[in-house]
Amino acid sequence: MGQDERVSSPESGDVVQSFARGLEVIRAFDAQHPDLTLSEVARRSDITRAAAGRFLRTLQTLGYVRSDGKSFALTPRILELGFSYLSALSLPEIAQPHLESLSREVDESVSAAVLDDTDIVYVARVPTRRIMSVRITIGTRFPAYATSMGRVLLAGLPNDEADAVIEASDLAALTDRTLTSPVELHAEIDRVREQGWSLVDGELEPGLRSIAAPLRGRDGRVIGAVNVSTSATRDSLAHIVESYLPPLRASADAIERELRLV
Amino acid sequence: MGQDERVSSPESGDVVQSFARGLEVIRAFDAQHPDLTLSEVARRSDITRAAAGRFLRTLQTLGYVRSDGKSFALTPRILELGFSYLSALSLPEIAQPHLESLSREVDESVSAAVLDDTDIVYVARVPTRRIMSVRITIGTRFPAYATSMGRVLLAGLPNDEADAVIEASDLAALTDRTLTSPVELHAEIDRVREQGWSLVDGELEPGLRSIAAPLRGRDGRVIGAVNVSTSATRDSLAHIVESYLPPLRASADAIERELRLV
Repeated sequence: MGQDERVSSPESGDVVQSFARGLEVIRAFDAQHPDLTLSEVARRSDITRAAAGRFLRTLQTLGYVRSDGKSFALTPRILELGFSYLSALSLPEIAQPHLESLSREVDESVSAAVLDDTDIVYVARVPTRRIMSVRITIGTRFPAYATSMGRVLLAGLPNDEADAVIEASDLAALTDRTLTSPVELHAEIDRVREQGWSLVDGELEPGLRSIAAPLRGRDGRVIGAVNVSTSATRDSLAHIVESYLPPLRASADAIERELRLV
Repeated sequence: MGQDERVSSPESGDVVQSFARGLEVIRAFDAQHPDLTLSEVARRSDITRAAAGRFLRTLQTLGYVRSDGKSFALTPRILELGFSYLSALSLPEIAQPHLESLSREVDESVSAAVLDDTDIVYVARVPTRRIMSVRITIGTRFPAYATSMGRVLLAGLPNDEADAVIEASDLAALTDRTLTSPVELHAEIDRVREQGWSLVDGELEPGLRSIAAPLRGRDGRVIGAVNVSTSATRDSLAHIVESYLPPLRASADAIERELRLV
């Protein structure tokens, strides 16, 4: 590191390159790669073995990584980093018991998410059965444009800001049903804004259906979304709207009332 | 940073000091301090304002921090760091639905935790009501010696390792009931090992009662613990053992069976 430690860029001012690289080392570990050798960490973080060794030793000294001498793995202490954010947010704690009740009532998985750039990020979740091909945990991200929670979050933004998010999004056809035209997405978001909820049918993953409602903070701005997700084989679209929307809205209302007390 | 970038210490080899400091900057944010000014970050991380500025700009460039120009806050993207660990761990995902059922059956909060040094760390949780004075989320840590999950985790270690953890622990009297004598703790852990579960009555917090059972991995080693927690005003000790222990053990058994399939 040393002399390239501070790198200037017109947008960002000088940044601490070795800090950025160290964070990359943490992100080298994931569900498919829970245990990594020194060489694997170096390759996945795109740094030299010597640098990877120093970052891993730093993490080990701080208790964030353990090693059996051959391979390395993250320790539970690493959760402290992500949970600085979660513990600062009152939404997950307030939402969780309401999501539990909602999930019991509809017998389906329910979640809460917030918007971050062009993505939604899960901040609370009560899973019942596994219907997605990917594992969803707190922190899981999906592109906002293709999800029911994303659409209610976009509908909560002023028109120009929602358009900016759509413009910044990589509008990929995730399934053959995904809306990818900015004009159609704009129209759909207008519709969602008007009706106050969003239903997405197989646009994120084939056969996955979900319905979402917004969560408004004290100032009336949309700060989050809650949804119920189910599968096309189990529930018709009509059934989802008739049976899940009323308890979903009641749950969102109850969460909003509590958020206003914070 | 520059020349003090690599610092040697006898135990750790050279570590990347600026990476360690950057992680401190992330940890400067917590539930009581979700928004911090530059000066506050510098003070809480014990670094200069100039250094704090560089770390914050680095985090902002990577999308981990946002700023309104006056103060700084973590973004949901920071969850990616902690969740590298959680997504690599199969325990939370496998345990969660079983904890949901257990919580419905006993109508109390239930949790799963793993051991990290002298602490237990929550990796899954289904809260029903709030009975602790502190907020418990994934990643919350408590000293192992004073908790029911900690005691079954310690009982799962070889005797000398359990003693080493007790010796390394700061044995504080968290309430007037907390066991703080190493000899008494050793005896209690032996008892827990023999009976296969642990009941702790008001040792972590007055009025808080909890009962825990171990989770064994494929090789028979204890890799986690599950518990049911309740309050002294609601449930007698006899009721906890009679009513909660059988479903708790059934739930632990079901989780273990699934863990063996991974």
